[in-house]
Amino acid sequence: MRFKCHPPSGHGNHKEDSPFLSSPDSASKRNDYYDKNLALFEEELDIRPKVSSLLSRLVSYTNVTQGAKEHEEAESADASRRQMPKSPNMGTLMGVYLPCLQNIFGVILFLRLTWIVGTAGVVQSFLIVLMCCSCTMLTAISMSAIATNGVVPAGGAYFMISRSLGPEFGGAVGLCFYLGTTFAAAMYILGAIEIFLKYLIPQAAIFHPADIHAGSGAMLNNMRVYGTICLTLMAVVVFVGVKYVNKFASLFLACVIISIVSIYAGAIKSIFHPPEFPICMLGNRTLVRDLFDVCGKTVVVGNDTVPSQLWKNFCSSENSSSAHCDEYFLQNNVTEIQSIPGLASGIIKENMWGDYMDKGQILEKASLSSVDVHGSMETFGFYVSADIATSFTLLVGIFFPSATGIMAGSNRSGDLRDAQKSIPIGTILAITTTSLVYFSSVVLFGACIEGVVLRDKFGDAVSKNLVVGTLSWPSPWVIVIGSFFSTVGAGLQSLTGAPRLLQAIAKDNIIPFLRVFGHGKANGEPTWALLLTGLIAELGILIASLDMVAPILSMFFLMCYLFVNLACAVQTLLRTPNWRPRFRYYHWALSFLGMSMCLALMFISSWYYAIVAMGIAGMIYKYIEYQGAEKEWGDGIRGLSLSAARYALLRLEAGPPHTKNWRPQLLVLLKLDEDLHVKYPRMLTFASQLKAGKGLTIVGSVIQGNFLECYGETQASEQAIKNMMEIERVKGFCQVVVASKVREGIAQLIQSCGLGGMKHNTVVMGWPYGWRQSEDPRAWKSFINTVRCTTAAHLALMVPKNVSFYPSNHERFSDGYIDVWWIVHDGGMLMLLPFLLKQHKVWRKCKMRIFTVAQMDDNSIQMKKDLATFLYQLRLEAEVEVVEMVSRTLSMGSLYSDEEEETIEVLPEKTQMTWTNEKIEAERRNRSKQEQELECHHSVKLNEVIVNKSHDARLVLLNMPGPPRNPEGDENYMEFLEVLTEGLERVLLVRGGGREVITIYS
Amino acid sequence: MRFKCHPPSGHGNHKEDSPFLSSPDSASKRNDYYDKNLALFEEELDIRPKVSSLLSRLVSYTNVTQGAKEHEEAESADASRRQMPKSPNMGTLMGVYLPCLQNIFGVILFLRLTWIVGTAGVVQSFLIVLMCCSCTMLTAISMSAIATNGVVPAGGAYFMISRSLGPEFGGAVGLCFYLGTTFAAAMYILGAIEIFLKYLIPQAAIFHPADIHAGSGAMLNNMRVYGTICLTLMAVVVFVGVKYVNKFASLFLACVIISIVSIYAGAIKSIFHPPEFPICMLGNRTLVRDLFDVCGKTVVVGNDTVPSQLWKNFCSSENSSSAHCDEYFLQNNVTEIQSIPGLASGIIKENMWGDYMDKGQILEKASLSSVDVHGSMETFGFYVSADIATSFTLLVGIFFPSATGIMAGSNRSGDLRDAQKSIPIGTILAITTTSLVYFSSVVLFGACIEGVVLRDKFGDAVSKNLVVGTLSWPSPWVIVIGSFFSTVGAGLQSLTGAPRLLQAIAKDNIIPFLRVFGHGKANGEPTWALLLTGLIAELGILIASLDMVAPILSMFFLMCYLFVNLACAVQTLLRTPNWRPRFRYYHWALSFLGMSMCLALMFISSWYYAIVAMGIAGMIYKYIEYQGAEKEWGDGIRGLSLSAARYALLRLEAGPPHTKNWRPQLLVLLKLDEDLHVKYPRMLTFASQLKAGKGLTIVGSVIQGNFLECYGETQASEQAIKNMMEIERVKGFCQVVVASKVREGIAQLIQSCGLGGMKHNTVVMGWPYGWRQSEDPRAWKSFINTVRCTTAAHLALMVPKNVSFYPSNHERFSDGYIDVWWIVHDGGMLMLLPFLLKQHKVWRKCKMRIFTVAQMDDNSIQMKKDLATFLYQLRLEAEVEVVEMVSRTLSMGSLYSDEEEETIEVLPEKTQMTWTNEKIEAERRNRSKQEQELECHHSVKLNEVIVNKSHDARLVLLNMPGPPRNPEGDENYMEFLEVLTEGLERVLLVRGGGREVITIYS
Repeated sequence: MRFKCHPPSGHGNHKEDSPFLSSPDSASKRNDYYDKNLALFEEELDIRPKVSSLLSRLVSYTNVTQGAKEHEEAESADASRRQMPKSPNMGTLMGVYLPCLQNIFGVILFLRLTWIVGTAGVVQSFLIVLMCCSCTMLTAISMSAIATNGVVPAGGAYFMISRSLGPEFGGAVGLCFYLGTTFAAAMYILGAIEIFLKYLIPQAAIFHPADIHAGSGAMLNNMRVYGTICLTLMAVVVFVGVKYVNKFASLFLACVIISIVSIYAGAIKSIFHPPEFPICMLGNRTLVRDLFDVCGKTVVVGNDTVPSQLWKNFCSSENSSSAHCDEYFLQNNVTEIQSIPGLASGIIKENMWGDYMDKGQILEKASLSSVDVHGSMETFGFYVSADIATSFTLLVGIFFPSATGIMAGSNRSGDLRDAQKSIPIGTILAITTTSLVYFSSVVLFGACIEGVVLRDKFGDAVSKNLVVGTLSWPSPWVIVIGSFFSTVGAGLQSLTGAPRLLQAIAKDNIIPFLRVFGHGKANGEPTWALLLTGLIAELGILIASLDMVAPILSMFFLMCYLFVNLACAVQTLLRTPNWRPRFRYYHWALSFLGMSMCLALMFISSWYYAIVAMGIAGMIYKYIEYQGAEKEWGDGIRGLSLSAARYALLRLEAGPPHTKNWRPQLLVLLKLDEDLHVKYPRMLTFASQLKAGKGLTIVGSVIQGNFLECYGETQASEQAIKNMMEIERVKGFCQVVVASKVREGIAQLIQSCGLGGMKHNTVVMGWPYGWRQSEDPRAWKSFINTVRCTTAAHLALMVPKNVSFYPSNHERFSDGYIDVWWIVHDGGMLMLLPFLLKQHKVWRKCKMRIFTVAQMDDNSIQMKKDLATFLYQLRLEAEVEVVEMVSRTLSMGSLYSDEEEETIEVLPEKTQMTWTNEKIEAERRNRSKQEQELECHHSVKLNEVIVNKSHDARLVLLNMPGPPRNPEGDENYMEFLEVLTEGLERVLLVRGGGREVITIYS
Repeated sequence: MRFKCHPPSGHGNHKEDSPFLSSPDSASKRNDYYDKNLALFEEELDIRPKVSSLLSRLVSYTNVTQGAKEHEEAESADASRRQMPKSPNMGTLMGVYLPCLQNIFGVILFLRLTWIVGTAGVVQSFLIVLMCCSCTMLTAISMSAIATNGVVPAGGAYFMISRSLGPEFGGAVGLCFYLGTTFAAAMYILGAIEIFLKYLIPQAAIFHPADIHAGSGAMLNNMRVYGTICLTLMAVVVFVGVKYVNKFASLFLACVIISIVSIYAGAIKSIFHPPEFPICMLGNRTLVRDLFDVCGKTVVVGNDTVPSQLWKNFCSSENSSSAHCDEYFLQNNVTEIQSIPGLASGIIKENMWGDYMDKGQILEKASLSSVDVHGSMETFGFYVSADIATSFTLLVGIFFPSATGIMAGSNRSGDLRDAQKSIPIGTILAITTTSLVYFSSVVLFGACIEGVVLRDKFGDAVSKNLVVGTLSWPSPWVIVIGSFFSTVGAGLQSLTGAPRLLQAIAKDNIIPFLRVFGHGKANGEPTWALLLTGLIAELGILIASLDMVAPILSMFFLMCYLFVNLACAVQTLLRTPNWRPRFRYYHWALSFLGMSMCLALMFISSWYYAIVAMGIAGMIYKYIEYQGAEKEWGDGIRGLSLSAARYALLRLEAGPPHTKNWRPQLLVLLKLDEDLHVKYPRMLTFASQLKAGKGLTIVGSVIQGNFLECYGETQASEQAIKNMMEIERVKGFCQVVVASKVREGIAQLIQSCGLGGMKHNTVVMGWPYGWRQSEDPRAWKSFINTVRCTTAAHLALMVPKNVSFYPSNHERFSDGYIDVWWIVHDGGMLMLLPFLLKQHKVWRKCKMRIFTVAQMDDNSIQMKKDLATFLYQLRLEAEVEVVEMVSRTLSMGSLYSDEEEETIEVLPEKTQMTWTNEKIEAERRNRSKQEQELECHHSVKLNEVIVNKSHDARLVLLNMPGPPRNPEGDENYMEFLEVLTEGLERVLLVRGGGREVITIYS
């Protein structure tokens, strides 16, 4: 408190890293000042930019680099972009709409949508599509709000989310997005391989099922081998020539569009002239078509009727008379029906409701007649059967990837002419388009194609044609080839995008173990990131089944979308001033709905995947939080903790707490030395040992000087105190004030520290140790003044004397006593403090002893009994002792007391009448001499008793007498206190705040 | 701020309603002072009690009334107690153990436990009992901790809970407890009627089933009629003679104990000599025994073998040859087995696992052979069948009431010699005893009684004997009569206890609509409360089924227990200093486990009842909170909000927020007039309109005077400000400080308001309106000083001029402009403020206009374009205008600027070197005259432009120029500001805090 601050070193020139001004160079600054005529604002102008120059710099800056400073480095490292710094000139159509369209349409539409429609039926498929698409639509709305809330830095969705949600959420969401994209790559590759091996070149299969019943094991191995080869090839392509990938993007998009158009064309054509794809049924069971030629039990060869290939399949011998045939084959007829009855056929009625199948269940057409006998197991391979068990929830998980990809537009924010306009419009239009395509596809598939064919996932019934291909016009090959190329393209793009995303996250340096993935090779390609992406994608490929990979990536994308919605909802509700999206059609309720839908979809499609995904995200969050990411980009979430704190504080503000809720809320007054270091750190140690009360701790200090000149010193000493608080493990707040006089500063701290209900109720102050030696009376004057202030403010006061001898936090007292000298009942602080101290490890093993002083007419035996009862009721364990003071003191004391009596009796009743006080004051002055002698004598006697009883105590707690009303007695008062505490190692002087702090009631 | 406080009217004599001291009368006080020898503590002694006198008063007080003052009234109103003020002298056994025992044992043990064992099997029944008993045991531990935390006031569990959890929770828990007890009364009455009608006097039934198949409808109606009669009778008994109820308590207890003993005796006897209760089986089906005499298809009458009654029941004609008999009857044999094979028979193996039945399922003994043909429906009535569908969860709900009643001991706290010792020991012992009885009963029942008999709820198979009665020794009647009386007694006690509990809650006056139930008749009987209790119990009786009422009361008791556990866990975790239970063997983890078990049991036994019960409790909580119960008893929960606030604040403390999170956190400096009223309330209105930023608002004011003497004034003015804040709907905090000079007080507020991260960043200050007229220069001196202080503290400053013309919160501007004059870029406050204001209804329809001043070499067209772009990027909608100033001003300005240039260029770079500053200072002084003229001229010109453009604006925002560095120019500065803002209706002068507050980035 003695520190005097130095003369100011200049007008406090606080400079911030401005979010607009890219390192203002002095040259441009010099120019600004030539034309200054706003003399009145001269002072502002020499530290702040003038409007016109600011504006021109701003606008040109925006035009050139288009991105926040923090991304410049990332940009410049990306050589491929640096080589062609094309100005951002893409419009909504090319920049957002088409990329989104391409990313949303995917392999599921071609490979699984027919199967989903067949399994779930038109109505439930419609519901699945509706759920997925409305989820992405709501997310797109939230994302549009986020994307239009300020200049969108190049870097896309990850940057938007991390900058608005902060590093913890940003990192978690970013990694979810990355994992989602990586698994999407795996899914696309698996899809491409499936098309390749099933429909394009089935001969290429390496593994063949051992026999007709072996099922899918061989196919999975084929997928694994070809998938790994394909992934390696693609990774190489990405590694050597990312630009070719981008160039072929439009080709891939064209493939998708042509394929979709061919579906519509085929559906329309089917009205007049349905394509010829007959399927062969035995009873009501569907037969695998390519295992026989003629759909009939017999064929006419020449004039003979001979058994057909089908007959041979089902019978043990070719001889029709002696053969033993399958029972079901014998009892049922063979019929041939059309796989595509066409739009006009009314088949939609049959397909309206789904038919969920168990694994291995044979596809049956319910409307055909069938004699229900059990065929032999050997013939199972001739029927088309379900390869997995299906349910509504499973289908949701498989379909959802078809709705993802909505971030493609915002990822290109850097290349857009007007990102704030293009992103919302383009994305929402793209989602609308794709949703309409999906809805119409569901209806068309249901209306055109026979149910058993729809449920036939791999087109076994239609000679291993792609089912959707059979509908398309002019040829199934249009779709097979189109979907193959588009799938390959999508895979390539995912493989391109994912490593770049990982690199961006790594460069943000919020997740230390990812740091290595931030490096790229010379041309900026993220080599290591690509490698990791390849490895993770390989995991997906080893799963080998499209139907099992799809739910995994659904989870990650849904997590990501969930957070986008959350970011929008939270920022809207918190009304962050910076939350001013240009896109107006958002609402927190929509975002909340979107969030709920994401969550619901996650748990609907797979609750255990959902828990795993949330666990992963949670772990990443905690990891980043633990690493203490201190990022300069700020987070929209901070408003949450601000709101929470404000709410909690406002709730608290309802007057002082009830006695039974009283906790010491400390204001610790610290002295600083000349170097702004804490003079007695043990004060903080003591405070931390008292913190079992779990109340508030404010550490205050005063710097002597002029506030206008001491800002730097204040900051420095606050930092010093905070460091010391950290060392001493005091959790609390720090407040350093500048005042012209120390005592005024202290009065100020006592008055105005704390906020609302979080106010201190106890002041902890050090003893002015050298006051006897010091010729400067201010040392003890400010001490006494502080005592008076605490009394005036109704605060309790604690003065630890010889604080340097107090134990550190590492010491452990294994025995000994905490002695309380209960001389006046002062609200019960004396009883409560030892209890609180004993909660701390240091004092835990100490025992509490309570001494009280019996006087003239006290019955000390009864007193001891009463005291024990009282402590029992207080639920405090303590030894009790009543000390009798010698008679000489007593008589002197009582002599004095008799005189005092009258005035004291007057005081409580006439406390409002000022003359009483004045009279008392006058009387007091007359008596002051006499008093002083008495007090001195009493101090000595009391000290004798205390030292006698408590010389070996670990800590002595003692009532602190109040300072004399008459300032003339101040020096004597100090002297008395010294005498009173002499010969005791550790003393804590305690003065109550004028209220009860401990109660016998619960 | 001008208020000067009066001389002190006495030493701030803050007196609290002490929790120990019962209105200290002056007589006892006078005595204290005769023996005062502690001169040093004289000051304490005249306002605080001396230890010895405090102690003696305390102890005697405790001995006489035994209860908190707040209950005294309740006590004295209770005439029956007043008439015999017996001193509390009950020990653990009589006071706690036996009452608990009696309350815990209940009707379920006798009426349902056999059935539960039969249905769930021994193992699962054991589990049910274990769950219920461990739940109550954990609750008892928590309750013991609460009960031993301080002197337990008379009033029992409700008082303990409400005093430790606060009125909201206390009221909710109290009502749950009340409803539970009331439904318990209904359950006991239903149980008593069941015993009466089924086992005692079946002839008394009024309604009889129309035929043998009609089932339980008639029985339910019997229950309703007799239940209502019984309830009425009991209510009358309670009303006229509560003391008789209490007197018969020991009789009822004796009944219970005798009944239990007879069960054990019977079980032991069954080892040697099992009782003869044959049951008759047809095939494996159990037959209702009282519908026939001989268990056989034929009887030998004389020498003839004639069809038995049983045969006649199952066959259509008595003639054995022509009769058409029931198929099942014909194909199966009739066997007779023992219902009580006895302890030694090993029947327990068969009963080990349960047999949950559907409604109407016939009780079958699996080990008997049976030809499984479908009998005719007409014979259904001859078999014993299940009357309800059972499941594990249902049985839990039905059994739980047997474990309740653990509060009986603590309810008698007022009568105990040493409540703190007796309650834990007695309660825990009673729970242990009852648990052991239940466990052993489960095993004994399973080991002695045949499974079909156990599952036979109403003893149909054993001639309508009570099943447990068949086991008992010496006679079934022991249990039938014993359980009847004990059940009637329990019902009477519930009916006695519930109204008293309701009365106690009503007298606490926390739930206003219950107030009427607080009144009693002359002798203190709570008439209205009894009436309500009767009505609610009647609801339970109308349900008429014991099995349906039991889960209802389970819910309410579980809710109550849940809160007891919660109270214990929360207080342990919060480490409230007052939480010092004498009972040591509690732990928060145990309480937490108990809480979880309560919750689990609630949802296990019936999730919808659980939700309803929680809904009811929640509604009561909200209602009490809404009614704003301000009870003086304090709550242990308050620590929660304190901890929450502390945690939230500590989380916040991490430096200033990022630009994008910046919100105005206001410190509003208010002037008070002589009467301590707010001088310009519109300052607060303005602050509330800015509160769209949802930041912090601290309202500060300064009282001139000496802190030691002004405590009262501070409190009064804080209250005045708070009232005004309420009126103006400003949510925030208030801080009044006393300082010897107003300007120092303001500096102090600016420095030390706020806590941790909750610090103000913007100061709102009024204009010193009369400064020109006032001869006292302090008026404007302190204004300028405040401006300097805010600059030094890096705070933003807002000065609303003509604040009285600012709109109130009720006005709505339907059009008009908010004009911003953007002269220097000062962090962006000027842009942000109109946006924030426009979030408020008052300003919503105003449009924003931004004016900037083009100077000499500015290209104003380009500037306007740039400004529009800038605002677009800021996502602010505003009209933009660039104003060109006339050339004469410009040339003068530039002339001056040229000179200024050199020094300014020096400043930013050498800011650390003090000589630079001094040099500047010197130069400045030389130039001051010239400056002043220029500034004056400039002000006039700028004002002309502003008035010209913005004379019709609703509000004009303007950069506030900084005060001159040289204090000599202060008066001129004030003059310039006046000139600058002349002719404008509402002006807001804004000065940034030296940091950017708005950003174009998201």
